[in-house]
Amino acid sequence: MTGTSDARPVSRRGLLTGGALAAGGALAGAATVTAARPDTPGVRPAEAAPVAQVGSAVEPFHGPRQAGVATEPQAHAAFVAFTLRSGTDRAALGRMLRLLSDDAARLTQGRPALADTEPELGLLPARLTVTFGFGPGLYRAAGRDDRRPDSVVDLPPFRVDRLQSRWSGGDLLLQICADDPLTVVHAQRVLVKDSRPFATVRWVQQGFRRAAGAEPGRTQRNLFGQLDGTANPKPGVPLDTAVWVPDGPDWLRESTTLVVRRISMNLETWDLLGRADREVAVGRRVGTGAPLTGTGEHDEPDFAALGPDGLTVIPDFSHLTRAHVTDDRLRILRRPYNYDGVPTADGTADSGLVFASYQADIARQFLPIQRRLAERDLLNEWTTPIGSAVFAIPPGCPPGGWIGRQLLG
Amino acid sequence: MTGTSDARPVSRRGLLTGGALAAGGALAGAATVTAARPDTPGVRPAEAAPVAQVGSAVEPFHGPRQAGVATEPQAHAAFVAFTLRSGTDRAALGRMLRLLSDDAARLTQGRPALADTEPELGLLPARLTVTFGFGPGLYRAAGRDDRRPDSVVDLPPFRVDRLQSRWSGGDLLLQICADDPLTVVHAQRVLVKDSRPFATVRWVQQGFRRAAGAEPGRTQRNLFGQLDGTANPKPGVPLDTAVWVPDGPDWLRESTTLVVRRISMNLETWDLLGRADREVAVGRRVGTGAPLTGTGEHDEPDFAALGPDGLTVIPDFSHLTRAHVTDDRLRILRRPYNYDGVPTADGTADSGLVFASYQADIARQFLPIQRRLAERDLLNEWTTPIGSAVFAIPPGCPPGGWIGRQLLG
Ligand code: HEM
Ligand code: HEM
Repeated sequence: MTGTSDARPVSRRGLLTGGALAAGGALAGAATVTAARPDTPGVRPAEAAPVAQVGSAVEPFHGPRQAGVATEPQAHAAFVAFTLRSGTDRAALGRMLRLLSDDAARLTQGRPALADTEPELGLLPARLTVTFGFGPGLYRAAGRDDRRPDSVVDLPPFRVDRLQSRWSGGDLLLQICADDPLTVVHAQRVLVKDSRPFATVRWVQQGFRRAAGAEPGRTQRNLFGQLDGTANPKPGVPLDTAVWVPDGPDWLRESTTLVVRRISMNLETWDLLGRADREVAVGRRVGTGAPLTGTGEHDEPDFAALGPDGLTVIPDFSHLTRAHVTDDRLRILRRPYNYDGVPTADGTADSGLVFASYQADIARQFLPIQRRLAERDLLNEWTTPIGSAVFAIPPGCPPGGWIGRQLLG
Repeated sequence: MTGTSDARPVSRRGLLTGGALAAGGALAGAATVTAARPDTPGVRPAEAAPVAQVGSAVEPFHGPRQAGVATEPQAHAAFVAFTLRSGTDRAALGRMLRLLSDDAARLTQGRPALADTEPELGLLPARLTVTFGFGPGLYRAAGRDDRRPDSVVDLPPFRVDRLQSRWSGGDLLLQICADDPLTVVHAQRVLVKDSRPFATVRWVQQGFRRAAGAEPGRTQRNLFGQLDGTANPKPGVPLDTAVWVPDGPDWLRESTTLVVRRISMNLETWDLLGRADREVAVGRRVGTGAPLTGTGEHDEPDFAALGPDGLTVIPDFSHLTRAHVTDDRLRILRRPYNYDGVPTADGTADSGLVFASYQADIARQFLPIQRRLAERDLLNEWTTPIGSAVFAIPPGCPPGGWIGRQLLG
């Protein structure tokens, strides 16, 4: 490998503030911003060519909380779960997490990783975030089971589950998200390579949402065509209350937890349903996302309202009724991605959600909802959980620090 | 299924001209454009929310030539190859292609397909194109082998090939490209469903390039980190000469051909190479894409220039030397997409190119280049063709017409 660690990519931070906005098809040349610093001979990213907002936009890596949780969801994600090698003890874990934190700190800011063998692919951050999750096995390997947040244990089985081990479990998770697919793939490549001495790849789940700029400010749609994310806790107090652990020892404060469920969505049978039946199953309109008792996406559902038949307008078994929670301390932050594999020869789709849910406490917030859904949610007719994993999302780190220091350091 | 065929999405054409440009992270609310027409109650795409350029941009479907060839490559692609069912004769082919042409005509313009069961997913065209390719088997099934362009036959074997049948062949191809991944997946779903009576899915290859707006006007990079596409024939006379059949009977005029090769790229061994070795293998710099004899990406390579050692600066076995062609009638238009599957447990990547090459005549243009590369191209050390398929790309169709009419009608 040749010397790439001294690469000095163009400082893009300056581009993020005053720059014109640009995107889309025919606008090469529009909204160009001149590079702030000349390139070095080794790595020349810019060559005085236009740089637009989507590629150069940066999310901070350092801070008390990890990025990629409250971050406005990027268009592409790879959830990469690892199994620790048998020799990976507390000291080794510390080395691995120092290395991976350094990689993440660089790549998220549009700088190649130290050992980056394709440094040119590290120059477009596109809002890259790398979020570290610790599974139960990591605490065991570190000899620090006493510091595992209580709720970070395998979920109990639910009667709707058809879990496959190839989508389940994991000692370490890297959730890699960016608005550019090449950026995600390159970051994944670097991080997987640097994990090799310590861990093997257990599973990778790739997912997507709408492209950056495709419908800014809109709720995304899933592959059933539904607006998905409407009732998420809003940024600010509601989200903070639901997601972040406010106090406790330093390895817990500003942490959160993540449940990743791979949920297959049966498009074949869903497509046979009429529109009204679909809306009854969820309790919301397909077109607008409005509750059946309202007209706008963000109208409050009225669960008591009765229809002419004397029954509640929003049925008891609807996904909305079963999942609805009003107390912010009991709500969850859903940050799902769509997946779509290769259809079978007869055209049966392999579609679903990489359902990712963040909450301060899995037992207090996620489990009651999941139990109510498993018990009696009409949507279960068309959805099947086929993978499941839980992770603690430890606090963030300051510049020069690394994720997991409070646990392992 | 409920009545969705009468959905009248907002006319987006007006939005494409005067509209402000918007994209990227923090700009929800920027560049909003008011919807031109009110929504119908059935399907409400816009709800007076912002509509941005990436999602609403449209590529024409109708015209003498098919879209998706000379079209500036979109960020996402699915190449879907079908095997015709045994009963699919000329009449059935006509029915299938009428149906699929109608689907494509609608979806590419941001209108749901007639039998669309998720009409809301059909409203963001994001420069969607659907390009139809006819494999040798389609001409046989139609009893029209005499109208198959001579060069549309399986390629001869090359010594570098390690072809797998699961990535090879196909009677019909749909190349589905858009700047939004959900748009591609939805179009694929509709088209696969409507093909069911006539054909089974043989293979699907998904690929990606940089996101729309990530680096407008720049040449994309592949997973080796190389600028890939530099020496493509430029739009206008060079591209037209290379790609389109200028004369002949109506089923041939304005047609072209497509070779799809799945080429795995061995990142493990490539990553062991030094920068200089990589540049020698290709004949161009990794950073700038400049030929080894120049400084700018688009400088003409000087194959005669000698180095201090008396050898040519651009080695004889470099990819550039072996692939270089100057006569536009002999050049090819490369429109490749990156693929990246799931790495193995030990972290070995499954990366490569869905290499797609358009040319008027495969035998005249593609084969000589491919032969020279197979014979002695240093890049072969790190790349392996694992799939291969050839298709005629028949002429386009006018509004109300359908692709393949000249062949089957
Ligand atoms: C493939 C599986 C699923 C699909 C297609 C789906 C779809 C939806 C849809 C369309 C909504 C209404 C719009 C919105 O607020 O986002 C919704 C709401 C919600 N879903 Fe799901 N969901 C799935 C699985 C789950 C799971 C596994 C959980 C948690 C265990 C969950 C929890 C919720 C919650 C908490 C709400 C908000 C309810 C409210 O307070 O109004 N969903 N889901
Ligand atoms: C994974 C496989 C391949 C990789 C990584 C690759 C990469 C490259 C790169 C980096 C360039 C220089 C920049 C450019 O002009 O785009 C190039 C040029 C070119 N390649 Fe490839 N290539 C591959 C396969 C092929 C194949 C299979 C063909 C055709 C049979 C081909 C034909 C060409 C041509 C015609 C040029 C332009 C040469 C010139 O006129 O300057 N390549 N390729």
